[in-house]
Amino acid sequence: MPEIRLMRRVLASNDALAAAQREKLDEHGVLGINIMSGPGAGKTTLIERTAEALGRRYRIQVIEGDIQGDLDACRVAAKGVGCVQINTQGACHLDGLMLGPAMGEIDFARLDLLIIENVGNLVCPAEFVLPVHHNVTVISTPEGSDKPVKYPLMFSKSDVIVINKLDLLPHVDFDLAALKKAVRKLKPGITFIELSAKTGDGVDKWVAWLEEKLRTRRKKRPARPSRS
Amino acid sequence: MPEIRLMRRVLASNDALAAAQREKLDEHGVLGINIMSGPGAGKTTLIERTAEALGRRYRIQVIEGDIQGDLDACRVAAKGVGCVQINTQGACHLDGLMLGPAMGEIDFARLDLLIIENVGNLVCPAEFVLPVHHNVTVISTPEGSDKPVKYPLMFSKSDVIVINKLDLLPHVDFDLAALKKAVRKLKPGITFIELSAKTGDGVDKWVAWLEEKLRTRRKKRPARPSRS
Repeated sequence: MPEIRLMRRVLASNDALAAAQREKLDEHGVLGINIMSGPGAGKTTLIERTAEALGRRYRIQVIEGDIQGDLDACRVAAKGVGCVQINTQGACHLDGLMLGPAMGEIDFARLDLLIIENVGNLVCPAEFVLPVHHNVTVISTPEGSDKPVKYPLMFSKSDVIVINKLDLLPHVDFDLAALKKAVRKLKPGITFIELSAKTGDGVDKWVAWLEEKLRTRRKKRPARPSRS
Repeated sequence: MPEIRLMRRVLASNDALAAAQREKLDEHGVLGINIMSGPGAGKTTLIERTAEALGRRYRIQVIEGDIQGDLDACRVAAKGVGCVQINTQGACHLDGLMLGPAMGEIDFARLDLLIIENVGNLVCPAEFVLPVHHNVTVISTPEGSDKPVKYPLMFSKSDVIVINKLDLLPHVDFDLAALKKAVRKLKPGITFIELSAKTGDGVDKWVAWLEEKLRTRRKKRPARPSRS
């Protein structure tokens, strides 16, 4: 099966590239987060809320991945944080090669948090390692609680599941307990954060999780040569 | 760029396979429909409603495409129509090769309507022609009206856009006029059908569209040699 061998080579070379790119973050104690979801689950709104909550205390850079257009980049930049748009021109995911030029322009010495918003897709992005420390998957209540069974790789590759659009819970068929059970089968010990990015309810839990990771990352920042 | 040439070859060979498979449908005057959407937009619920409305008057076969699991096939089969589950084992779309075994088992002489439910994904399925006469994309109101700008290929390859979850319209930010305008830019003259597969509101318009296409297809059925 030459097709599979080719794909393995592509993935292995992406792994190596992402690892090299992540070294730049580690060198400066920057926290990297990759946010994934299906289309319209609320990734951008969550990033807007994050910028509102943390933008004055931390230096944040967002990389927006979209097949086309710059709608999300404009929304995020309006919140006063740095934002670069990557158009994948048809590709269903971001990878190290696509991130290269954007990563090259970032001054990591003046950064605390890098947020990468992946292409809206519950399949392909899970296959490509990005230069981050945590993968976050957003699932919204109108999508239904059967998604982990249908898209297992995405959930098994995630460290945090943000359950978004809690405000719609009374209007949709969504079994929160069933979703958590199905995800835990794929990834025991995973963190769940329930919120509504639209109303802001529960966003404090997401922000608290991020801040804890930001503090941990800062402590790992390598010592600099003293100025004297 | 060998990667692009390889992809072109894969797509061209899929086009030829899908065309050959569609001949089987045409030989027997069977209507083929490919339903696509992001995860959780309501494809399966729409197919359940279709089976309820047309299952007694037309012979329906459903092919369910999912990365893993048979949840959707079970749901559809419970409505009394034929259903085959295809697990793509990680692949983000259906194509002619994956459909082959299922297509080989279908008795098209005893069929009126073939419905293929594609993998929940607004990107990859649009690239692979399937053995059908119409592509239908389901977009649900909680996903937001910016989707055509971000996922243009899917909308430009569709003949019908089903706008689902109309029952949630009062609770979400969804600009119906903006969505239609953006889709028409990509595909002038496209058909929109607004409905709630959950409540059943507007499903009659979808059923009427399908029945009109079923009648047209039947008329095109080639004359059979008389029995005498």
